Formats: sequence, structure tokens, C-alpha cells
Amino acid sequence: MGGSADNRPVIAVSMGDPLGIGPEVVVKALADRALRARARFRIFGWAYAMHRAAERAGIEPYWWRAAAPMDESGVPAVPGATMHHDVAVLEDPSLELDERSLDAPPGPTRAGGAASFRWVEHALACALLPAGDDRQAGAVVTAPISKEAWTLSGGAAKKFPGHTELLAARTASRRVAMVFVGPSLVVSLATVHVPLASVPELLSIGRVFDAIELTHQACGVLGRAPRGERPRIAVCGVNPHAGERGLMGDEEQRLITPAIELAVKQGIDASGPYPGDSVFLAATRGGFDAVVAMYHDQGLIPMKLLERERTVNATIGLRHPQGGAVVRTSPAHGTAFDIAGKNAADASSMRAAIDLALEMAARARM
Amino acid sequence: MGGSADNRPVIAVSMGDPLGIGPEVVVKALADRALRARARFRIFGWAYAMHRAAERAGIEPYWWRAAAPMDESGVPAVPGATMHHDVAVLEDPSLELDERSLDAPPGPTRAGGAASFRWVEHALACALLPAGDDRQAGAVVTAPISKEAWTLSGGAAKKFPGHTELLAARTASRRVAMVFVGPSLVVSLATVHVPLASVPELLSIGRVFDAIELTHQACGVLGRAPRGERPRIAVCGVNPHAGERGLMGDEEQRLITPAIELAVKQGIDASGPYPGDSVFLAATRGGFDAVVAMYHDQGLIPMKLLERERTVNATIGLRHPQGGAVVRTSPAHGTAFDIAGKNAADASSMRAAIDLALEMAARARM
Repeated sequence: MGGSADNRPVIAVSMGDPLGIGPEVVVKALADRALRARARFRIFGWAYAMHRAAERAGIEPYWWRAAAPMDESGVPAVPGATMHHDVAVLEDPSLELDERSLDAPPGPTRAGGAASFRWVEHALACALLPAGDDRQAGAVVTAPISKEAWTLSGGAAKKFPGHTELLAARTASRRVAMVFVGPSLVVSLATVHVPLASVPELLSIGRVFDAIELTHQACGVLGRAPRGERPRIAVCGVNPHAGERGLMGDEEQRLITPAIELAVKQGIDASGPYPGDSVFLAATRGGFDAVVAMYHDQGLIPMKLLERERTVNATIGLRHPQGGAVVRTSPAHGTAFDIAGKNAADASSMRAAIDLALEMAARARM
Repeated sequence: MGGSADNRPVIAVSMGDPLGIGPEVVVKALADRALRARARFRIFGWAYAMHRAAERAGIEPYWWRAAAPMDESGVPAVPGATMHHDVAVLEDPSLELDERSLDAPPGPTRAGGAASFRWVEHALACALLPAGDDRQAGAVVTAPISKEAWTLSGGAAKKFPGHTELLAARTASRRVAMVFVGPSLVVSLATVHVPLASVPELLSIGRVFDAIELTHQACGVLGRAPRGERPRIAVCGVNPHAGERGLMGDEEQRLITPAIELAVKQGIDASGPYPGDSVFLAATRGGFDAVVAMYHDQGLIPMKLLERERTVNATIGLRHPQGGAVVRTSPAHGTAFDIAGKNAADASSMRAAIDLALEMAARARM
């Protein structure tokens, strides 16, 4: 492999919180040689954490390790030799990581937050490079970070509740949707990492419309518009029984229905608002290609029950400075500190996230 | 059958909104002769609607019809002859029901609201009678009503958002829980039919504690404490990721954790708060016997996905004036006006509700 003839896509992987299950699921997912042959993987992370995870899992290390300091333009200075390896782990020498931290009970730490934040920035910086650059990544796959660790780390990380918000800010993308993708269901969220009490005040006609429009767009990118038709998008209500015609809350009549009508006028096959407790079953029975949920648990509870470990998160709407979109996927689980370091993590979602990233990157090139 | 030797329990069934699928699911569920043999069923409803449903389903009417006006003490004057029939449909002659209304597209109506409200009151009145009374019902099974129709009907019905609130008021039960019961999962709700925006302000340590305590009690009544141990009760957070230690909402730290601690001090095996999007999968995999959700969709979305048509609703905590509890179950679906009158309704949940009512009534007698 390698050399100038290697036109496989570059996939930038951020390793996630080093004390969480990120290193383990990355190591396990890429342990599949056939998967590694499909792309050149650049893992922004910490090789020591990966070695530890590999050792516990009985996996022979398959990666090449290199220092990649950030250059003056904020892009990791990836050594040229890296290009000849299927998998390279690129370490930022300025990060202070303590090997002993991996022996303590895992949890959010200042160092873990700072490192996992930096790795996302590095991976994204590669994705934002122009197409001609050797380091340019066709997709970003992010392993889980801890919001609490980001807060502890201080500095820039503190401002961002999660990956989605960071990526949106760095790409100056105003309309971004977090979409959950499984074999049979696509679910998006109108609001994400906010207290439940803030959901009603955050919802607006524009916000719901944006979620519908981006979900429509996502179905296209994801190839989820069956039979060459428009994707059928179901929109949830926010109240019990979708408000039952205004008897339990008025957001449906005031915000959600107008947003659906606006989408329909734009040629989108959107309908609703449907009660949260019936729409997902209807979707899985083939009634809809995607469901727009109004808040985190409304979308994630059914998604994780229906698609389980196969659930992948994709961010739709991230703008590339040269035009087109930045592809980003991630496993749908969190850092899972409670099982970290125990070789107990299931890498199915990370594997599915990499598969989806490859598929979306290929589609984006067409 | 019949005569004084008949000591089968009396089950009072309210037929639900006459324009919804209530009549159809009652007719279909009780079409099973073996089920009818297990109790004496008193259906408070409208025989004409049942005849129509039976005709469409190709079911021979199996019930006896009688007028049962409300007596001066607010209890239906059930004719003595009724005692000799497995299934009697008891009609309140004061209700104005128009046979032509069943030919129009089904929806909430004033007459349907008034009638369905009255039938619940009649069924409950029989349940509240002292044990010696021939009319005394050992359990109440309610078919779905339309809250919108109750509102349209004006009068007393207007005040109640649903069955649970009505039954709680009529029995002066201050601590009542709506519990959803399926073959593998029991789910209860700390708040029910309220706008999502009201959930955070309605939650309190006492309210969450009550939900935990009543769920503990429910597991006992339902026989869901396996291996003779205390039932294991999982409590959901209200915010995404259960607030992630206060980063997204503080209800977990301020209200839910103290309520769990209070329950544990009372000897209840409660734990949490757990993220909504992981706890239900953990429960179905055997980690918990019941889950306390903080609001309607958080509990009902997973329940209906996991248990589907087998989901039954039970009300826990209804006080009988002679001591003990009033048993009440109902199917977990609504009036489904969209499919009413089309012989398209699935009676599985009504059948499961009747089975559960019989089981709970038997347990209450022990």
C-alpha cells in the first residue's frame, strides 16, 4: 500500500477521552484487516492508551506511531511517512498525559478533557484542508468525549457541550443536525444537549423547520430515499399525545405544525406532529424513512432500543470551506467510564460509524 | 352458570368513547369463551355500538342487554337477572346517543364524551360497593376515552385530563400511579398528562419518591418481585444523560437523587438516576424489575416499542372505602379514531388488560 497511487480516502479518527472506552473501541473496530484496507486511517490520540487496550483484548498492535505537532496554521504537521501506513496514530507532543492515570478508576479529568478536545480539533483541521493536500481527510470519526472533562479542562473546550457544537462553530455552519443512523431508522433531534426545561423555549418554527430540512438532506446523503422517491419524514410532537389538539401544550399548533407546512411547501415529504409513543413503531414498520424528534431522550430512547449497538451518529450540515460538506460520524454511546479499562466494550457502533463514514465519503466524492 | 353459587369475580368494563375503537376491542377481547367463563363481566356502554363492531368482525353477539339507571346513591341499578349472565351490557337510559353518529367520520363529540365519562363513573361506583353487594366489582377495566371529547362534553368531565385523575378524585386517593405493565417490563410515570414544559416545575422530591414507592408497591401487587426478593427499581433522570452530573439540568441532583435516597432509607431497592436512553435496555436485559420515568413519552416510547400490543395500563394506589385497593387496568392505546369503525383494531392490549385485572383481583382476594 501507499505511494502516490494510493487514492483510498483518508479517515481522521479522534480517539476520544483517553480514560473512557474510546481507545478500546477504536482498537477493536480497526482490528479488522479488511476494514483497514479500505482507507488510510489517521488516529489523533495517544498510542499508549491504545496499546493498553490492545493488550487487554489480545490484539497485536497494527498501527504506526508518529508525533504530529500542530503547525502555525493550526493543522497537525503529519510526517510524510505516515502516508504509507494503513493506520497511523498521531500524537500531539504538547499534551501532558500521565501513563499512571490509566491505572486509576476512570472518570472525567482535566488532562483527558484537554487531550480529547485537541484531538477533535486536529481531526477536523485535516478534514478542512483543500482536496489536493496529502493530509486532507474525507471524513472525521469521533470516539466519545466526556462533557464533564471538557468543562474541567478549562479553556476553549469549556464552551462546547459536545462534538456537534464544536464542529458547527469551527466550520461556521449555522444549520447543523445530529442524526442517528441505524440499519432501519434515521432519527434527528431539534434540540440536543440542553436541560429538558429549556426544550420548549428553544423550539421555534425555524428550528423545527431546519431539523426537518436537514433530515431531508441527510436522507439524501445517506441514501435513505427508497425507490427513488422523496424520503418520508415523520415529525414528533413535544407533548404527550402530540398535545392532543392543544389540550396538553400548544407547541404543536404554534410551532411544529407551521414548520411542517413550511417544509411541505418546499417540496419535502414531511408529516405530523405524531405522538412520540406511536411514531417510532410506525417508522420501523416501514411508514417513514426518518423521524425528527424534538429533544434528546425522545429520539435516543427509541433509537437505542431499536438499533441498539448498530446506532451511529452523523452530523449533517457541516460546511467545507471549499464547498460541499464535512462528513462526520461517531458511535452513539458515551465514554462509559464504568466499563473502561475492562475490555468489556462493544465496538459494534464504532465499527458501524467507520463503515458509514466510508460510505458517506465515497458518496461525497461522486 | 349463575345463582348464589357463582363466586367468580365481577369485572366492570367501561366501553370507552363510543366512536373510538373501545366497543370493537371489548367485543373482540371477550369473544373468547374461555375468558368469559372466568368472571362475570358488566360492560357499562352502548349495546348498539357493540353490535355494529361485532357485525363488522363477524362475531355473534354473546351479551345480554339491560337498562341500568343510576340509583339515588349514584350506583347503577343493575337488574338482578344480570347476575345470571357471563356478559351483560348495562345502558344508562338518561344518555342521549344517536345511532347515526356511528356513520359519520369518527372523532371527539360532546355526546361521546358525556357517555364515556358516565360509564367510567358507573364502573367505578360498582367497584366501590362493599364486598357483600351483588353488584360489587372486583376490578375495573376501562376502554379508551377521548380527553378532547370529555372537554367538549362540559360538566364534570371537563375537569379531568383522563381516567387516572378521575379515579383518584372519586376515591380520594392522594398518591396514585399510572403503571404500564408488559410481559417483561413495568414502567411508571412521575408525571403523566401534562405539557412537557410543566414537567420540571411539577417534579419534586415528594412526587418522585411517591412514584418510586408506588412502583415498589405495584411490583408486589403484580407479582413482579422475582426470587422472593425486593423488586429492583430503576429511576430515570429527566435531562439528557441524566444531566451528566449537573452539566445539563440540575433536577437529578436537586430532586431525583434525594428521592432515591429517601426510598432506599425506607427499604426500597431503588437506584439511579439513569439516562433514559440506556436504562430501558438494561431493564429488559434483566437488570431491573421496573423503571420509574419522569414524564409521559420517556416511559411510553420504550414501553410501546418493547411490549407493543401487550402493554397494559394499571392504576396503583386507588383506595377502596372498605380498605384495600381498587383494581383498575386498561389497554395502553387511545381511541384511535383514525381506524375506528373499520374492524382494523387489535384487541391484544384489551385482552391483556382483562387478564391482568383478573389476576390482580384474585391476588387482592387472597
